[in-house]
Amino acid sequence: MKIGILGTGIVGQTIGSKLIHLGNDVMLGSRMPNNEKAIEWTKQNGSKASHGTFAQAAAFGNILFNCTSGAVSLDALNLAGKENLNGKILIDVANPLDFSKGMPPSLTVCNTDSLGEQIQKSFPEVKVVKALNTMNCKLMVDPSALDEDHDVFMCGNNSEAKSEVAAMLKEWFGWKTVIDLGDITAARGTEMILPLWLRLMGVLQTPNFNFKIVR
Amino acid sequence: MKIGILGTGIVGQTIGSKLIHLGNDVMLGSRMPNNEKAIEWTKQNGSKASHGTFAQAAAFGNILFNCTSGAVSLDALNLAGKENLNGKILIDVANPLDFSKGMPPSLTVCNTDSLGEQIQKSFPEVKVVKALNTMNCKLMVDPSALDEDHDVFMCGNNSEAKSEVAAMLKEWFGWKTVIDLGDITAARGTEMILPLWLRLMGVLQTPNFNFKIVR
Repeated sequence: MKIGILGTGIVGQTIGSKLIHLGNDVMLGSRMPNNEKAIEWTKQNGSKASHGTFAQAAAFGNILFNCTSGAVSLDALNLAGKENLNGKILIDVANPLDFSKGMPPSLTVCNTDSLGEQIQKSFPEVKVVKALNTMNCKLMVDPSALDEDHDVFMCGNNSEAKSEVAAMLKEWFGWKTVIDLGDITAARGTEMILPLWLRLMGVLQTPNFNFKIVR
Repeated sequence: MKIGILGTGIVGQTIGSKLIHLGNDVMLGSRMPNNEKAIEWTKQNGSKASHGTFAQAAAFGNILFNCTSGAVSLDALNLAGKENLNGKILIDVANPLDFSKGMPPSLTVCNTDSLGEQIQKSFPEVKVVKALNTMNCKLMVDPSALDEDHDVFMCGNNSEAKSEVAAMLKEWFGWKTVIDLGDITAARGTEMILPLWLRLMGVLQTPNFNFKIVR
């Protein structure tokens, strides 16, 4: 499969490398075509890896991941362009963290709105599925790194898109439990656990943990 | 031990009944001394149960629980009075849910502030410990109702108070893992998982679930 990843940070790189390892073709997209991180990542990941602008990566992928910083996600998607995004599944992994006021970050949007909703509203013809934004990127692509099962949350307005994403999360990354929280407004809930996640990372002194819903 | 519980809803009643069952004396406090729910609860819980105003319940308890609705917690605590609260541990179970705009509720405060912080700021001589606000009240007092272990979060500025509360949560209710998230600003994190909790309750069709941090 051809996959476009918007964002060249550790999240985009980690997901991209895993998807290449699984046999997919992946293009990392960034603001500038000569992004150094993207060039280096492409070198390290062989012939199935490529990089380009946000628009090029969006045009390349049949499935897209938003791995940009939440504060600039809408900018990045505008640069990617509706003509390259419309009709496609966009797995939104971003969190609207605001680091401008120091640590710990707050959220740029929450409570009565969310980044996931803002993206869906700005791009109504994109099938936005919010997922994977509640754990470290190593666990996103390798949940078995923890000894015990744990959960990934998913939400979005398009049921078929969610079914596809759930199947991909299981097949690609090995997730056992994908909890469908309903429509995209549930992104408020998953984005709003970031403050707790950040506290836990500090207390546990590791990012290698995740939430499990015990029932 | 003598325990004062502010609030006569299902949370206060459930915690109160459990504490009486464990041999403590419990007074439920409410705005009006003739609160019908409190009168009925007192009848059902025998000689160790009593009820009164917020001020009476606060004066009665050596340890206090805030089980009022988050939107009115500061009012209730003002009615309880600093003279009855100061120097005591107040376990803050409340969540600042705003039902005024319909379902699902939003939060009256979040992101850069929290109810826990507002209470601590308004009552600097009270040892506020935020705890138990992230699960259904049946699980608060009986975590073993789920087959698998799960977690309760705790935060507050006073380390000794937190040690006492952690010991009580274990001894009284049977909690195995009490995760200390640090100072009271961590209340932002635990209060902000309510939107996710509410979504999960809808999806799972039960309030009988809780978070476990898998590491």
